[in-house]
Formats: sequence, structure tokens, C-alpha cells
Amino acid sequence: MKFVEKLRRIQRKNNSLLCIGLDTDVLKVPEFLYAYGDPQFEFNRRIIDATRDIVCAYKMNDAFYESAGEHGWYTVHQTLARIPEEIVTIGDGKRGDIPTSAERQAMLLCEDWEFSGTTVSPYMGRDSVEPFIRREDQCAFVLALTSNKGAKDFQYAKVKGRPLYEHVVTTARKWNSKKNIGLVVGANRPSELKRIRSLAPDLPILVPGIGAQKGNLEAAVRYGSDKRGELVIINIGRGIIYASDGKDFAQKAREAALSYREKMNRYRN
Amino acid sequence: MKFVEKLRRIQRKNNSLLCIGLDTDVLKVPEFLYAYGDPQFEFNRRIIDATRDIVCAYKMNDAFYESAGEHGWYTVHQTLARIPEEIVTIGDGKRGDIPTSAERQAMLLCEDWEFSGTTVSPYMGRDSVEPFIRREDQCAFVLALTSNKGAKDFQYAKVKGRPLYEHVVTTARKWNSKKNIGLVVGANRPSELKRIRSLAPDLPILVPGIGAQKGNLEAAVRYGSDKRGELVIINIGRGIIYASDGKDFAQKAREAALSYREKMNRYRN
Repeated sequence: MKFVEKLRRIQRKNNSLLCIGLDTDVLKVPEFLYAYGDPQFEFNRRIIDATRDIVCAYKMNDAFYESAGEHGWYTVHQTLARIPEEIVTIGDGKRGDIPTSAERQAMLLCEDWEFSGTTVSPYMGRDSVEPFIRREDQCAFVLALTSNKGAKDFQYAKVKGRPLYEHVVTTARKWNSKKNIGLVVGANRPSELKRIRSLAPDLPILVPGIGAQKGNLEAAVRYGSDKRGELVIINIGRGIIYASDGKDFAQKAREAALSYREKMNRYRN
Repeated sequence: MKFVEKLRRIQRKNNSLLCIGLDTDVLKVPEFLYAYGDPQFEFNRRIIDATRDIVCAYKMNDAFYESAGEHGWYTVHQTLARIPEEIVTIGDGKRGDIPTSAERQAMLLCEDWEFSGTTVSPYMGRDSVEPFIRREDQCAFVLALTSNKGAKDFQYAKVKGRPLYEHVVTTARKWNSKKNIGLVVGANRPSELKRIRSLAPDLPILVPGIGAQKGNLEAAVRYGSDKRGELVIINIGRGIIYASDGKDFAQKAREAALSYREKMNRYRN
């Protein structure tokens, strides 16, 4: 099944544009989980079990797992195995390299872990991204406009009168022959998001930056979604997974996720 | 010791600008190494032992190790432990992310593995790179102009009349308050390398693309080195480590490395 089709299906089934960011900091999980061999996995497992019927996707930034050393690889595998097949999984690695090396990166993210989506940096161009879009059911989300301060350093640079990120968007569309390219646009850039959606009406857009990063949820939904009110994936991490640091953390995460889902659905086109 | 000082010392001691790229593909190591528990490490160990007196640096692209699954983390550790302290080690991960995630990336590359240098992508700007330049003895090599085809997609885009990569270079110089920023420039872009060196006379430049990627060695040395004939790190991977696929592979790698070192020294300023 093509990625876009899979995404639409789960967004309809779970009536949700919400992606939960499982960027699990082992120092921030409730203390009682330290009794387990893999507290990071135990945390993820409980969050997934509590929210799997109300999300369209889970995103894992692999930096939070690779930094755990040799065990991180297992934790990603175990976490992914806990996520139902129908839900989109995004390996947020911001990868990309010369082809021989990018193929190795894709071996890990797209074959070994088998995420249904990955994030990639555009700077090195088309051949640095190609290994991530080999399979039609796997999407590469190209960084267009990011939510951090440093986005101002290069992403807004004017190229032929338009900001660089717009060139990234129009170029990424040209790479989209298998209909499996997406974009990353920060939720704190609402007018830019609106413009990017108009330039790429048919691409999935992953929108980070809501919650801890204080992005604009209404704009993210209104401007990010397509004509059918779909194809935007709104990631919320810390605002949901750390809703409580007690034994009730998974229940509180569900409550936070339900509340976010409801708000988003209110704003959908 | 500051990174630049460490680099100059080893370049003088070993009279070498050569960096060997240990991007070891486990499918390309000589068959007799499969008898060992970790053929990738056994390969690296022998290459290091055979070349440690004639190089200034070793570069490891982490994609070749992380794709090996849970064991990759050990292989990197073991390989690094085999490299003498005085030699520069570069973790070629092309990382960079929003600060909370970039800190995790740096935890792995700069603290856990403790590479003396890393490669970072500029697209997300200053705060995405900062965790990699916290320690004065560790250098972040910012991708300026890469050796792959895709470099043409965005890196040459004209911004205020100059190519984007030049803006990356001048901006990276501004980030260099701790004297631990470097640049990556492909060996197949000689005139651009010359220009970049003139814009950044004091920055270390990592030059990939010689050998299998057919870059220009003479230009890499002449245009990449600083006034003292130093501060350019010329990476050669496949052209050295796969010089032979027999039992003599380490000896043949040494011979190839010696020959490259000699050629480079002939062209040095």
C-alpha cells in the first residue's frame, strides 16, 4: 500500500491527525520503571498501549535510542513491534549522505527497523535521499522549514527572490515520482506553512513544534491539512508523554492525547 | 589541547595529511576474517595497526556500524580504542537537529564514542550544531560543498549573488568562537575548494572524494591546505582499505597509504 493511502486510512479510522513523539529521555521516565531491564521500552510500551486507538502515527527520534548505547537498537525494535501495523511509524533521524553511505543509513531505518517514514536533510540533494524512497510504502519527509531558532540561518536565504525552503519544497515535489515524499515544517511558522501547503497540495506534512516548543496548533491543522482535512501529521512529544511523572503517566498521556485530538479535529478543514 | 593544535601536531609527527576512511563494509572484508566474532573490527584493527604511523586521522562513517545492529556500537568503541590518542578521529554522521535532540546525538558521538571530530549538516543552523562544539578539543566539520551529484541541487543556489555553500562557509566562521569549527569540501570541486580556503584561511577542511570518487588529489592538497601546508585532512577510504581482498590486505593498504602520503607531500605548500 502506498504511504499516502496508509496515512489516510489510519487518520480516518482513528479520526486523528495526532502523532506522538516517543523521544523518550530515560532520565524523565517515572522512577518505578527503573525496576525493569529496559525502562525506556517499558515507558514506550505503556504509552503505546494507552494511545494506539487515538493516533495516526508514532515518531521516534533515533538520537534518544542510539545514545543509550548497544541496547538502543533493541529498544527501537521492541517499541516498533508494539505498534499496530496500521499505524504510521516515523524514524526521525534527519539522515542523508553520499549514496553508498545513505544506503547504509536506509538499511537501518527502512529495512532493519522498517519505519514507514523517515526524516531526511535536503542539503546534499537528490541522491542523498533516494535510498529512503525506494519502497512505495515508505515516505521520506524532507526538512523544509524547521522549528528551531537556527532555521533562520539558511532556510530563509533568498534564492531567486524566494526563500530557500520554498526551493526545497518545489524540488522535493519533483523527486516525488513514487508518491512517497513528504515535508517537515515547524508549527511555529504558520504563514510559511500555509504557503508551503499551497505549493505542495498533495504531500504529507509532518509538523513538529507543538507543546514544549509552543507552536500554533490551530494554524498547524488549518494550514497543514489538505483539502480533505488530512495529510498533516502533527507531532506532540513532551506535552503528552510527560503529562505526569507518576504511576498514572500512561493514563495522563491518554487524556492529554485525547484533548489534543479533539482540539485538532475542531480545526480540521 | 585545542583541536587545531592536535591536528597540526599529528600532521607534523606523521608527516601526513592522509585520513583513512574506515567505512568498513562487512561484505567486502577478506573471507578469512569471517572466522572471528566481529569481522568488521578485526578488519579495522589490522588496517589501523598497519597505518597508524603514516596518517593524521581516521574517519568512521557511523552508518556502516549502526546498520550492523546492536553490535555496531561495540565495534565503534573497539575500533576507537585501537587508535593512538594522538591521532584525530572523525565520526562522520552528518548529524544536526533541534537542540534537545542534537544534544543526544552529541552524547553518542562526542561523549560516549568520544570522536575528536564529527561532521554536521548546516541546514538547521547554529543551534543544531552547538552541542558538537562544546569541547574545545572536539571539532564539528560543517558540510559546505559535498562530493555527490546532489550537491548541485541546493549548494550552488545563488544567495545575494554568491553560492549557498559560500554563505555556509562565512556563517560557520562566525560560529567559530572556540576555534573548533571545520568544513567539508569534496575533492572533485577544485576551484570551489580554492575559493573556500581563501574565505576560511584558518579552518580545518576535511576533503572526501579521492579514490573511488575520482577527486583531484593535487588540487585537494594545493588548494585545501593552509599557508603552512597543513589543516587539510584528505580522506581516502575504499582506495586504501580494499587495496587487496586477500590475506595481505593490511600490508597492501599500508603500501597504498604510503603512496598517497608521498603524492600529497609532493603537492604541499
